[in-house]
Amino acid sequence: MTLAPNPDRFLKSLHTLRQFGASGVGKGVVRPAYSAPDIAAREWLAAQEAGGPAISVVSFQDEEGRFGVTTGSAVWSGNLSLDRADGLTDTAGITFAEARAKMAHLAGDFVDPARFSGFIEMHIEQGPWLAQAGEAVGVVSDIVGIRDMRITFEGEQNHAGTTPMHLRRDAFQGLAEFNARISAAFAGVVTPQTVWTIGHVALHPGAHSIVPGRAEFAMQWRDGDTARLAVMEKIIRDTAKAVAEERGLTVHFGEMLGLEPVQMDATLRSALVESAKAEAPEQWREMPSGALHDATNVSAHMPVAMLFVPSINGISHAFGEDTDEADLTKGLNVLAGAVQRIGRNS
Amino acid sequence: MTLAPNPDRFLKSLHTLRQFGASGVGKGVVRPAYSAPDIAAREWLAAQEAGGPAISVVSFQDEEGRFGVTTGSAVWSGNLSLDRADGLTDTAGITFAEARAKMAHLAGDFVDPARFSGFIEMHIEQGPWLAQAGEAVGVVSDIVGIRDMRITFEGEQNHAGTTPMHLRRDAFQGLAEFNARISAAFAGVVTPQTVWTIGHVALHPGAHSIVPGRAEFAMQWRDGDTARLAVMEKIIRDTAKAVAEERGLTVHFGEMLGLEPVQMDATLRSALVESAKAEAPEQWREMPSGALHDATNVSAHMPVAMLFVPSINGISHAFGEDTDEADLTKGLNVLAGAVQRIGRNS
Repeated sequence: MTLAPNPDRFLKSLHTLRQFGASGVGKGVVRPAYSAPDIAAREWLAAQEAGGPAISVVSFQDEEGRFGVTTGSAVWSGNLSLDRADGLTDTAGITFAEARAKMAHLAGDFVDPARFSGFIEMHIEQGPWLAQAGEAVGVVSDIVGIRDMRITFEGEQNHAGTTPMHLRRDAFQGLAEFNARISAAFAGVVTPQTVWTIGHVALHPGAHSIVPGRAEFAMQWRDGDTARLAVMEKIIRDTAKAVAEERGLTVHFGEMLGLEPVQMDATLRSALVESAKAEAPEQWREMPSGALHDATNVSAHMPVAMLFVPSINGISHAFGEDTDEADLTKGLNVLAGAVQRIGRNS
Repeated sequence: MTLAPNPDRFLKSLHTLRQFGASGVGKGVVRPAYSAPDIAAREWLAAQEAGGPAISVVSFQDEEGRFGVTTGSAVWSGNLSLDRADGLTDTAGITFAEARAKMAHLAGDFVDPARFSGFIEMHIEQGPWLAQAGEAVGVVSDIVGIRDMRITFEGEQNHAGTTPMHLRRDAFQGLAEFNARISAAFAGVVTPQTVWTIGHVALHPGAHSIVPGRAEFAMQWRDGDTARLAVMEKIIRDTAKAVAEERGLTVHFGEMLGLEPVQMDATLRSALVESAKAEAPEQWREMPSGALHDATNVSAHMPVAMLFVPSINGISHAFGEDTDEADLTKGLNVLAGAVQRIGRNS
């Protein structure tokens, strides 16, 4: 098997593709899953040439999350039943079932996963590492696991004028101290790739003149190592309990949601590494993925691997999200070189 | 002049008064300004005996804040024009003008402040100090001043999976650090009566998986000393700027709202002190008021003083708010003794 990538045709195809739903802001597109421009783009994609080497191309539906996250690959892989998916709604209240009916003319039976020996996904990094280092490609080592929990401190709602500081049981002060103490406790545990976030906070009753009696917040943390995720969970629970105890608060932990880390397949990953050495010498690294990808769902059925190309200025989920065309071409060549190596060894 | 307080009649009148709008929960009442039970209670109050010593009794309207805070005394004192007040609305959208029309039959011309030589207000403490110390009355030294400011940290909204900790400009982390640093900086500045509160926080966009790009919050602080309020303001502004600078955030300070501290009149206050020594020996203290009161508005026109009676368990603004009847009687006696002393000396 010989794979001869054609960078000019690749870029020309991308330029054509981005005319579907072009936003008029930079190179950005607005092409929600099952919208008219999305369906038109899929009709264009499905009309590609057939024949050639035994490689299939897949464009999973709704990766960006109109109805969920990676909805298409979740349904195909069986991680999400079609029945349950059909009941999902977008922010306007439209169901997945209604939306996908618009594309019924393109739908067929589910493709059998047994037809494939592996899955390789090339994706924009959505982060700053490659761009900051001036590197062209990243070979993904693993997709990090996520833990996500709602935590609530309850104290005592009180008059903010007449309640002296030493008698307060202020739920926000509990949250602030919890935040400082977990950061300190994580220091000896985490790696530079580990992340944690408090992205949502609600104080009750939420008034200027009332000492907050309740603070509800979202605690999320991500890492590639299940054991490290568990150590972090213990720190979170122990710290919250200690802060509550010391401040006369109670603490309630919500249901723990999470996704397990996914290791990339060693064989596919080493093919990507060998190809990166040849095609982008000194311009590549191995790195974890902090974001979820379709590869997570696909990994239930076959070996998976991923390749990242840089995000200009690290920008993601905004019209400025982009990759330099020279890096896209390097990524294409690394991908082709890896597939060639896999074919040679199988 | 001789004042002979009649505790039995005083308590009987209170028992009658609390039947207007009785909530059925403990001794609590639901009697919003200008509601039917409020108007009925005022009709009952206005039918009291006349004659006797040259003392007037006032029941200011809307002290609790259906339309504002201490609306009645604010209008009477001229701190709030009647035109502006008429445009105020309650939470149901009813205007002050509409509400007060229901009580037009009881309304007359404004009473001229020049008729009065001073104002003494007896009020429930709404705090824990007297009850915790087992004391019966508090002679108020001053009503604290309030400063209230909305502060906003702006950072960078980002993907909570792919943005490493050291590259984040997380607005919530800015708020948490600001909170810790002002508490430390205040330590050398404040008294046990000084209070400060962050009672409202809004993170944007407020999602579990997004590093918050904006944190808006309410900063309120209270103290009896204008100079101390100003020192605290400087600490707040300097700390917020330093945290923003160090973390790559910007900070925006909203309009500073505030009320100046009000010193109680020395003559009226010393009459209360002398009377407390006689009527409640070893069971009284001097103390500041952390809450606003009608006396603040009245102080624009005449000397004012205040006397506190204890809050059982420190409870305020709930059906459990109450004062023991023995303490009410002591308060009445201290009040009468003070008025007697003032009459004697004038």
